[in-house]
Amino acid sequence: MTANILFAARSELWAEYETPLHAALDAAGLDCRLATEMPPETVDYIVYAPNSAVQDFAPYTRLKAVLNLWAGVEGVVGNTTLRVPLCRMVDEEGLTQGMVEWVSGHVMRHHLGMDAHIVNPDHRWDPVAPPLACDRPVTVLGLGALGSACARMLRGLGFAVTGWSRSEKRISGIRCLHGDDTLATALRGAQVVVLLLPNTPSTQDVLNASSLALLAPGAFVVNPGRGALIDDDALLAALDSGQVAHATLDVFRIEPLPKDHPFWAHPRVTVTPHIASETRPPSAARVVAENVRRGERGLPFLHVVDRDAGY
Amino acid sequence: MTANILFAARSELWAEYETPLHAALDAAGLDCRLATEMPPETVDYIVYAPNSAVQDFAPYTRLKAVLNLWAGVEGVVGNTTLRVPLCRMVDEEGLTQGMVEWVSGHVMRHHLGMDAHIVNPDHRWDPVAPPLACDRPVTVLGLGALGSACARMLRGLGFAVTGWSRSEKRISGIRCLHGDDTLATALRGAQVVVLLLPNTPSTQDVLNASSLALLAPGAFVVNPGRGALIDDDALLAALDSGQVAHATLDVFRIEPLPKDHPFWAHPRVTVTPHIASETRPPSAARVVAENVRRGERGLPFLHVVDRDAGY
Repeated sequence: MTANILFAARSELWAEYETPLHAALDAAGLDCRLATEMPPETVDYIVYAPNSAVQDFAPYTRLKAVLNLWAGVEGVVGNTTLRVPLCRMVDEEGLTQGMVEWVSGHVMRHHLGMDAHIVNPDHRWDPVAPPLACDRPVTVLGLGALGSACARMLRGLGFAVTGWSRSEKRISGIRCLHGDDTLATALRGAQVVVLLLPNTPSTQDVLNASSLALLAPGAFVVNPGRGALIDDDALLAALDSGQVAHATLDVFRIEPLPKDHPFWAHPRVTVTPHIASETRPPSAARVVAENVRRGERGLPFLHVVDRDAGY
Repeated sequence: MTANILFAARSELWAEYETPLHAALDAAGLDCRLATEMPPETVDYIVYAPNSAVQDFAPYTRLKAVLNLWAGVEGVVGNTTLRVPLCRMVDEEGLTQGMVEWVSGHVMRHHLGMDAHIVNPDHRWDPVAPPLACDRPVTVLGLGALGSACARMLRGLGFAVTGWSRSEKRISGIRCLHGDDTLATALRGAQVVVLLLPNTPSTQDVLNASSLALLAPGAFVVNPGRGALIDDDALLAALDSGQVAHATLDVFRIEPLPKDHPFWAHPRVTVTPHIASETRPPSAARVVAENVRRGERGLPFLHVVDRDAGY
């Protein structure tokens, strides 16, 4: 039997994904029809991006699953017309590895004090070596697929890593804390904090005036997670007081970051344009194909979102 | 019997090393006298930095070894008055780990294209993700203690790593080439080249007009090794033609880098002030103490320089 797959995302994405999706579905031995338009009542699976034109899932009467192209699902998780499994993208090869690279690079940049060498108009030769990574406490908030992979790599680079998550996790070589009671312990004295929590009502503004005050003076904030994890005004105040030496932010409450947002012009904020973790079409297509294969065989889907938890 | 150790390096270094050296010698159970001045004929060991006032070793008639505080020995290896073992510093904990951190950080910086975000006066939001590290060929020239440690970490970060050395090496997951015949193969198509060769007559100007032309167009040059490994004029020409997109240099033929050197003002050169690998006093003092212990027990010294090879 042929499975019908609706690709419900922007046309630029179709240009990127059409060939890799066909290749991955073929490689998985699946007989599928893949298109950007088809009658709703004939659709078995929707490959989805949260900015899709499809917002009412009610007409999709035989739908088996919605397969999201991104890890973040906050734009769709609350959609009450969606009554089938919603799967997040967990693209180890592209998305997770890309995140590990971005986080490793920017943490090393702050650790080594690179900016003073990259921009050095007075040509100052000031041979002061940074401390070793083992003397730099780094805290990673969030130990899901992305957070735990980043925590492991930072540990491999030599940092003293603390990880914090809602539920209990154990990662070799990393001090793992969990639950609300330990958040302050995880943040206290951290010289770098990396935010990789999902965006849920309980994680919003997790970095606020009181939690920022727990960090080591002159700490670095690195946010490749979600913009809403940070109280922007509190961060700006901490930057101005020196409590935070620099913030490198890849995600924002509004994207693209509005031209008049103070982050753009702040000398101690680096904006990257939501590139920390990009789904790469070839590897993401393989994840989609695997979930279609599971659906067709009646096997449980991978990476199903817990609609109550919100991720 | 008491061993007499002359500390023959600048007084600033004495201030840093006096306490750690005493602590390490005590911890090794050694009975030593440690001073910055003593009659030459009473000296058993010299802790040495190449810019030391001691240049004539002939009066040191009972000297057992010269223990260098740095990995580089080109300032002393040709000294014909030196007729006892010369030991390089191999400080895994401080020097090697520091080098691994500097190299990892700067390679990631170039890989991720960070500079365009760090300096972005027009506040451009241009969400183009870099390739994954697995699609970025990186070549490390030199697979000694520093080069092999860096090659392993770059491999751990995901890069496709080629290593090249004079003598044969094998490192898991890394394409290892050796000997003059394979240098062109090692460099051909590399998008990043990291220089960690010793400075010897045969390695000088290893990056020159013809070897730079082998790299991938728009490659990155990262030199934490020795300044003389690069033909400066050839590098400047390659930067101006675009063959090299950026060079990050920690070492120079003359240090501090002279104010009028074109590297300072070049928009695609980053100068760091010889900080990639700093001997950290606590860990380096333990290496010195171990060699004194070996000398006193009649055991072979660690990290003895091959005076013919020059390192």
